[in-house]
Amino acid sequence: MVGPVGADAADIIATAQMAADAARVVTLRYFRGSNLNTTSKRTDFDPVTAADREAEQVMRDIITARRPDDAILGEEYGETAGTSGLTWVLDPIDGTRGFISGTPTWGVLIAVRDATRALYGIVDQPYIGERFAGGFGTATFNGPHNSHALVTASNVELSEAIIFTTFPEVGEAADAEGFQALAQHCKLTRYGMDCYAYALLAAGQVDLVVEAGLQTYDILGPLAVIEAAGGIVTDWKGGSAMQGGRVIAAANAEIHARALEILSKY
Amino acid sequence: MVGPVGADAADIIATAQMAADAARVVTLRYFRGSNLNTTSKRTDFDPVTAADREAEQVMRDIITARRPDDAILGEEYGETAGTSGLTWVLDPIDGTRGFISGTPTWGVLIAVRDATRALYGIVDQPYIGERFAGGFGTATFNGPHNSHALVTASNVELSEAIIFTTFPEVGEAADAEGFQALAQHCKLTRYGMDCYAYALLAAGQVDLVVEAGLQTYDILGPLAVIEAAGGIVTDWKGGSAMQGGRVIAAANAEIHARALEILSKY
Repeated sequence: MVGPVGADAADIIATAQMAADAARVVTLRYFRGSNLNTTSKRTDFDPVTAADREAEQVMRDIITARRPDDAILGEEYGETAGTSGLTWVLDPIDGTRGFISGTPTWGVLIAVRDATRALYGIVDQPYIGERFAGGFGTATFNGPHNSHALVTASNVELSEAIIFTTFPEVGEAADAEGFQALAQHCKLTRYGMDCYAYALLAAGQVDLVVEAGLQTYDILGPLAVIEAAGGIVTDWKGGSAMQGGRVIAAANAEIHARALEILSKY
Repeated sequence: MVGPVGADAADIIATAQMAADAARVVTLRYFRGSNLNTTSKRTDFDPVTAADREAEQVMRDIITARRPDDAILGEEYGETAGTSGLTWVLDPIDGTRGFISGTPTWGVLIAVRDATRALYGIVDQPYIGERFAGGFGTATFNGPHNSHALVTASNVELSEAIIFTTFPEVGEAADAEGFQALAQHCKLTRYGMDCYAYALLAAGQVDLVVEAGLQTYDILGPLAVIEAAGGIVTDWKGGSAMQGGRVIAAANAEIHARALEILSKY
């Protein structure tokens, strides 16, 4: 196994959890702010951008203070080089359209990667108070009603699968065509959940999430959590999804293989 | 003003809140149950139906015990006649597809109507712990982080509006055409929120919700809450939405009028 073990793993986990805690406080200060809707429409002040930047900054401060040798790549502030071989990949608010609409489906995404793979990830939903985290041999859920291990769903036929995407809003026409070709084989298609769909997959609630046009910071956190929970995340050809682009997340290898048979043609 | 006042209003509100409290307990016993996903697929036992029925039954029991003269109309158990002129309209789980997918966007819907209008309504999201309630001169939100009055958004141009629907999943082709004609004038279209979209409108987060193919129990609770918060809910021609069908909910009369100019052609 490549990557840090023992004390370093514990320190990475603690640092990631502290960063998520801090981002939770910052984002909630802006979410559903009394005039968020109208303010963002009527003035140059954009509260989503403010929340995005403040949340990334507070996470960067924690990571830099605790792990000064690690690199950081964030959606808002770009890349800061490091020397440890580890990179923190941050998306302070994934799902900004959900955020400005008041839906509780956006999330704070945190991942730690080395040169070849994601080692640890967090998908945090601050408003509901849910945290999905995975890596270093564990995958855990902490929510308002309970806490438990994350385990993806067991195999089902495509005809019984629940599939999620942010389509029809995201992706090019060819992406949508590939998605529809797959979705028509599934039992139930749901839209609009932002990164929350990946969290539901990690928790065993849904079977497939298919998206396109992703950035690396959109997918690395979910990817780490889903892999730790027993799922599989690749691009539409079965290659690495770490750089984003077209992504399929599947609850297990069997349904992943069946979905790829269709998606790989697009 | 038609309808009960004073002590009767207080009793209706207390009864509705007790019913919502009870339905919250029942639905949460089933939501994201450890095998909800696989069980519903693999056996004849349908946990959504069980949750639906149990939640409606517990609400009926409370209403019948406290207000035996009122009629009850529920999605699962149909109509029970009354003599008071008031009818309780119940949808124990609105958004069953969201429920089985694990998304926190389904809700318990409760409304009290007389012969002509909705007097009081509740939209409750048990998992997040949010309750949107309105009628008898008040509109209130109670959630995990705070409580406050519900007030719909002030007027904006259509080009700045946020519009929600359950489309592309719900409605006939002609319904979808009307929706798209309106949505193309708006700033942001979001999908898949079930009844939660109406709650967000009541809370001032979004400007329009447009749907079709609704039943009376799908809309009466949201309608009461939205009207109490300052919004307007009608059918696509501007007539009553109390029976369901094609429904538009708008944050205020101005944006409602502009949206109807487009929708009424379909």
